[in-house]
Amino acid sequence: MGNDSAGRIESALRSWAGTAPPGARLPSTRALVAQYGASPVTVQKALRKLSALGIVETRPGVGTFTRSVRPGSPADFGWQTAALGTPRTRAGALSSTQRASVPDAIQLHSGYPARELLPERLVRAALIRAARTDAALTRTPASGLPALQAWFASQVAAATPPGLAPPSPREALIIAGSQSGLSSIFRALVGPGQPLVIESPTYWGAILAAEQAGVVLVPVPSGPVGPEPEEVERAFALSGARAFYAQPNFANPTGAQWSRETGQAVLDIVRGRNAFLIEDDWAHDLGIDTDPAPLIGHDHDGHVIYLRSLTKSVSPAMRVAAVIARGPARDRILSDRAAESMYVSGLLQSAALDVVTQPGWTTHLRAVRQQLKTRRDLLAESLRDGAPDVDLHQLPPGGLNLWARLPDGTDVHHLVRECESRGLIIAPGTEWFPAEPSGPHIRLNYSCEDPARFPDVGRILHQAMSLAR
Amino acid sequence: MGNDSAGRIESALRSWAGTAPPGARLPSTRALVAQYGASPVTVQKALRKLSALGIVETRPGVGTFTRSVRPGSPADFGWQTAALGTPRTRAGALSSTQRASVPDAIQLHSGYPARELLPERLVRAALIRAARTDAALTRTPASGLPALQAWFASQVAAATPPGLAPPSPREALIIAGSQSGLSSIFRALVGPGQPLVIESPTYWGAILAAEQAGVVLVPVPSGPVGPEPEEVERAFALSGARAFYAQPNFANPTGAQWSRETGQAVLDIVRGRNAFLIEDDWAHDLGIDTDPAPLIGHDHDGHVIYLRSLTKSVSPAMRVAAVIARGPARDRILSDRAAESMYVSGLLQSAALDVVTQPGWTTHLRAVRQQLKTRRDLLAESLRDGAPDVDLHQLPPGGLNLWARLPDGTDVHHLVRECESRGLIIAPGTEWFPAEPSGPHIRLNYSCEDPARFPDVGRILHQAMSLAR
Repeated sequence: MGNDSAGRIESALRSWAGTAPPGARLPSTRALVAQYGASPVTVQKALRKLSALGIVETRPGVGTFTRSVRPGSPADFGWQTAALGTPRTRAGALSSTQRASVPDAIQLHSGYPARELLPERLVRAALIRAARTDAALTRTPASGLPALQAWFASQVAAATPPGLAPPSPREALIIAGSQSGLSSIFRALVGPGQPLVIESPTYWGAILAAEQAGVVLVPVPSGPVGPEPEEVERAFALSGARAFYAQPNFANPTGAQWSRETGQAVLDIVRGRNAFLIEDDWAHDLGIDTDPAPLIGHDHDGHVIYLRSLTKSVSPAMRVAAVIARGPARDRILSDRAAESMYVSGLLQSAALDVVTQPGWTTHLRAVRQQLKTRRDLLAESLRDGAPDVDLHQLPPGGLNLWARLPDGTDVHHLVRECESRGLIIAPGTEWFPAEPSGPHIRLNYSCEDPARFPDVGRILHQAMSLAR
Repeated sequence: MGNDSAGRIESALRSWAGTAPPGARLPSTRALVAQYGASPVTVQKALRKLSALGIVETRPGVGTFTRSVRPGSPADFGWQTAALGTPRTRAGALSSTQRASVPDAIQLHSGYPARELLPERLVRAALIRAARTDAALTRTPASGLPALQAWFASQVAAATPPGLAPPSPREALIIAGSQSGLSSIFRALVGPGQPLVIESPTYWGAILAAEQAGVVLVPVPSGPVGPEPEEVERAFALSGARAFYAQPNFANPTGAQWSRETGQAVLDIVRGRNAFLIEDDWAHDLGIDTDPAPLIGHDHDGHVIYLRSLTKSVSPAMRVAAVIARGPARDRILSDRAAESMYVSGLLQSAALDVVTQPGWTTHLRAVRQQLKTRRDLLAESLRDGAPDVDLHQLPPGGLNLWARLPDGTDVHHLVRECESRGLIIAPGTEWFPAEPSGPHIRLNYSCEDPARFPDVGRILHQAMSLAR
């Protein structure tokens, strides 16, 4: 009887679909069950049949629709070529860190930590609490939820020596992730055609945001304790730049942390040049051997523009970050954010504040530090044992990545492909250089994959390297 | 009891901090536990609250201190004047629609509907469900959650006549609210220094986004059935523009809906000019007398770039919208979004999809339509009765606002101030004009205030008008 029923439903829906416009929505399974007095299994069977015949299409989670057919002649987008002209920035720049995951492969290419490193219980509880408050139904000011602004400001206050003024809550502007902060800062404080000093290598997302803003990059090499102050001074002098984008703590990709002397010297240069230091403290919660020491703590007159995000330490779904800026620079950035996106979802702001003010948050951060250390050391050991040609220089004191120098003459993109064919996905170092790479590098994220798979990494890399010279 | 204790300690420490010098050290947690007979957890809770409020600051490993105020010498931001130069767009543009609410006043200035018009139960339930899924802890692709892309595409498919191809899910790009869509579209498809045809009056947020993108606005007057096609043709011809930003359904601020003939004629002009029509369907869910008829349904070759947001109909905390675009234009917009913000919170996307696919959603939309009609008619009646000099021209067939023409010679900003001093907050019409206003107008949102207060509006307006001539 099931079969006959399914046939009956199929034929009724088929005639209905014949007269309905393409894209018309079928009644829900539940409604069809009621209408035809059949079981859900029978209804599903009829729908599957119609779908296989190309008469309807099911959009998971949405519903079933009569199939929309493309007309005989394909759409002609040729006219857009002239309307759009050539792109101002390289189009379609998708980083290899954003590749979809590859089943079964060992994946060290992502920019995000594994789920085990996220405070899952705190995140879910905070979101559920926020869903029950006003935050679920109201709009927040363009500058953010005042209590969350106060929290970001208080975090910097904790790093401010006595006698210096910490930022006020109104100087902390809430944004939807630090990428939008970088875009606004580059647009509002630098601008198209203007120079921006930048470390090399540095975060590819910053390079992308700067290119989008039409900014001219002025790279300075940066090593394990930061850039040479003389190089920074020279870059400012030659370019006339008024801003320097840098990651003084646990830089992405190298993991480097600037020495206290370098930080002080760079701050002095920036002050002397009447310029901004754009300090990206992306890994504030991801220290391993040391704690982060944000330079904004030593700023008094608004030279440091500070960025801190919760996306990597709280949850990728919690797109919440802050820009801390003082003086007219703050107003310029806020004005750009308001024009760009008006405001950030108060639900996410409220939930993020909930997470970071729970007692469980500090406990969680301590556990993450230990896990990152174990993971970093295990991956480094695998490389030392299996691929002794790879130079790690020094272990990063924090962050999520190993940055590895390969022997001269290694073809990095060839290596990446050889690794991939052996089930290991890594990111070519080229993406982190604003200009030509200083040598062949790869970046290996030790926080995203199951560490039980790390022991194979060195061996696979070694095999692949022998074919990529 | 925990809560009361924490509150008691918080309030005691607050008064103490009010008299203590900045930087004074608080007693240790242990001492406070003894002093107040509370648990360490309760004391910590009180301290966290004070810290979030910016009253005290905790320096880990050192102690808790009353907040150190700015040092005697105020910070000197003068150097930023030269570093920043003059702003490229008018700075600090905050619309009067974004003003904070004024207690006790009758508030008709906001751009958002009142909470009673939101599907509160559906929103809370959807957020709670999403908080329990993977969406709370994972990243989504830059183009959006595939099922939500499919839903936005299917909505347009429902408005596509048979024979024409509806957009595919991949052509629907998810964005965090339509303001960020406008910014990306203007940057990616028009660009700095390039002309953009725009209705006058039109949405102030679009004017702001266009200014931020450095676009040159080319206004055409637009009436109750849309712009005159001849004016549109002339604007394209004289400016050489390749794009037209318009709101064919329930325009903000006028509520106008284009006639079918106007829509067809404008589409023909746009096709003939090899140009884009940027169709902002912001009020798709807010029809009253008619249904929206999106022009994208009649597009085949990617001339219409379509924007639809759920922020106003689902919840202001649900910053989720979509841009539908075809051909290379889609890739340009996606590329700009990726550089600007990488991706949109999957939690919000997942919850938004949940809301709009519940059976309760259509029931809700029907109820909203009825409420909007009642509110619109009640406010219009109050104006007709109390302020007969105000010309409403015709009732808007949809949207959230009455757009009123005032007698010639009325000083709109004076009127707004006179109304405010009488407890009525309204928005001056000037903000919706890309150039000089065509006459004195005000915008009155009938969806945000308690309609029980509408009967007073006409009278107050009339009194204020007599003083603002």
